[in-house]
Amino acid sequence: MEGSLQRLIQYLSKLPGLGPRSGRRIALHLLKNRERIFEPLLKTLEAIRHEINFCSACGHLDDRNPCAICQDFDRDHTLLCVVADVADVWALERTKSYQGAYHVLGGMLSALEGKGPDDLAIVGLLNRCREGKVQEVILALSSTVEGQTTMHYIADRLEAFPHIRVSTLARGIPLGGELDYLDEGTLTTALSARKAL
Amino acid sequence: MEGSLQRLIQYLSKLPGLGPRSGRRIALHLLKNRERIFEPLLKTLEAIRHEINFCSACGHLDDRNPCAICQDFDRDHTLLCVVADVADVWALERTKSYQGAYHVLGGMLSALEGKGPDDLAIVGLLNRCREGKVQEVILALSSTVEGQTTMHYIADRLEAFPHIRVSTLARGIPLGGELDYLDEGTLTTALSARKAL
Repeated sequence: MEGSLQRLIQYLSKLPGLGPRSGRRIALHLLKNRERIFEPLLKTLEAIRHEINFCSACGHLDDRNPCAICQDFDRDHTLLCVVADVADVWALERTKSYQGAYHVLGGMLSALEGKGPDDLAIVGLLNRCREGKVQEVILALSSTVEGQTTMHYIADRLEAFPHIRVSTLARGIPLGGELDYLDEGTLTTALSARKAL
Repeated sequence: MEGSLQRLIQYLSKLPGLGPRSGRRIALHLLKNRERIFEPLLKTLEAIRHEINFCSACGHLDDRNPCAICQDFDRDHTLLCVVADVADVWALERTKSYQGAYHVLGGMLSALEGKGPDDLAIVGLLNRCREGKVQEVILALSSTVEGQTTMHYIADRLEAFPHIRVSTLARGIPLGGELDYLDEGTLTTALSARKAL
């Protein structure tokens, strides 16, 4: 197989969720559909290379800096939702139910991956809190060991701002969740956090 | 989410084996690793755009035309292996056990997908047979309804060349195949095609 084609398959194979087999399959699909798929994809990648950057305020990805969310004054900038990753912003935006601002940490504390507080955008978060506009910080982190460690670490740091309310996402049964498929931890949490009907 | 980024995710989501979730994940991975992943991938795609084309003789993908395999005179060009797709050439080349030439059909006969003989490179195959060099055609097609239909159709057409031997891949138990996991069809074939030890 020729050099650049082999290289393409290698690069594709290393993308998250892909392997050598799916890499070959995608490369072939691209080369077989030049006009319909290859060219539009290439043009989009070329456009994105310069257009899209991380927002220097919140860490979101956008073609503007500060990003569209940071510049949207219809949103409530007294409310700051702290998430680990840009994908979490996308997930929350898809709900269409959150109208505050975001702060993307760029990961979570992880001893295993050697990620400490300095590797996350925590200083930026504290600076935003110091500016005085923020009234509530929602810690929207995953319910994993890393997520909870990061949440508690940030909650500790936010104690320096007693006027800021710190909250976290509710725990309980997910929508459509069947009781006998749920783990004991979720059920225990849902039971102890039960609400009056 | 901004236009070109949304477009990228859409294009990625439509690649074989991917969906919206994996498309978003890959787009984010590219944007987070600009120097290490995005730029090399983009450069490779830009190179491939003009470098790699289908071989006009056999239908394989290469940076030369005729392709490296067609031009390799250490290979046995009296032997022609007919496959459905370029991926099959790659699979056979990985075995390092085949030293003949190839002919890529570009698909298989399929009533369901509306693919008839004119949609496959069958005329090219017959032309190559007519040249007189080919002594054996190996029909290396999948053991599916489409593969077998295509095989029988081509075998019929090749009866016009009585001097050419037509063969197909052996059927039997795959290497590492456990008897009680194999389907009845494979077992029946393996049994009736049994060999003396």
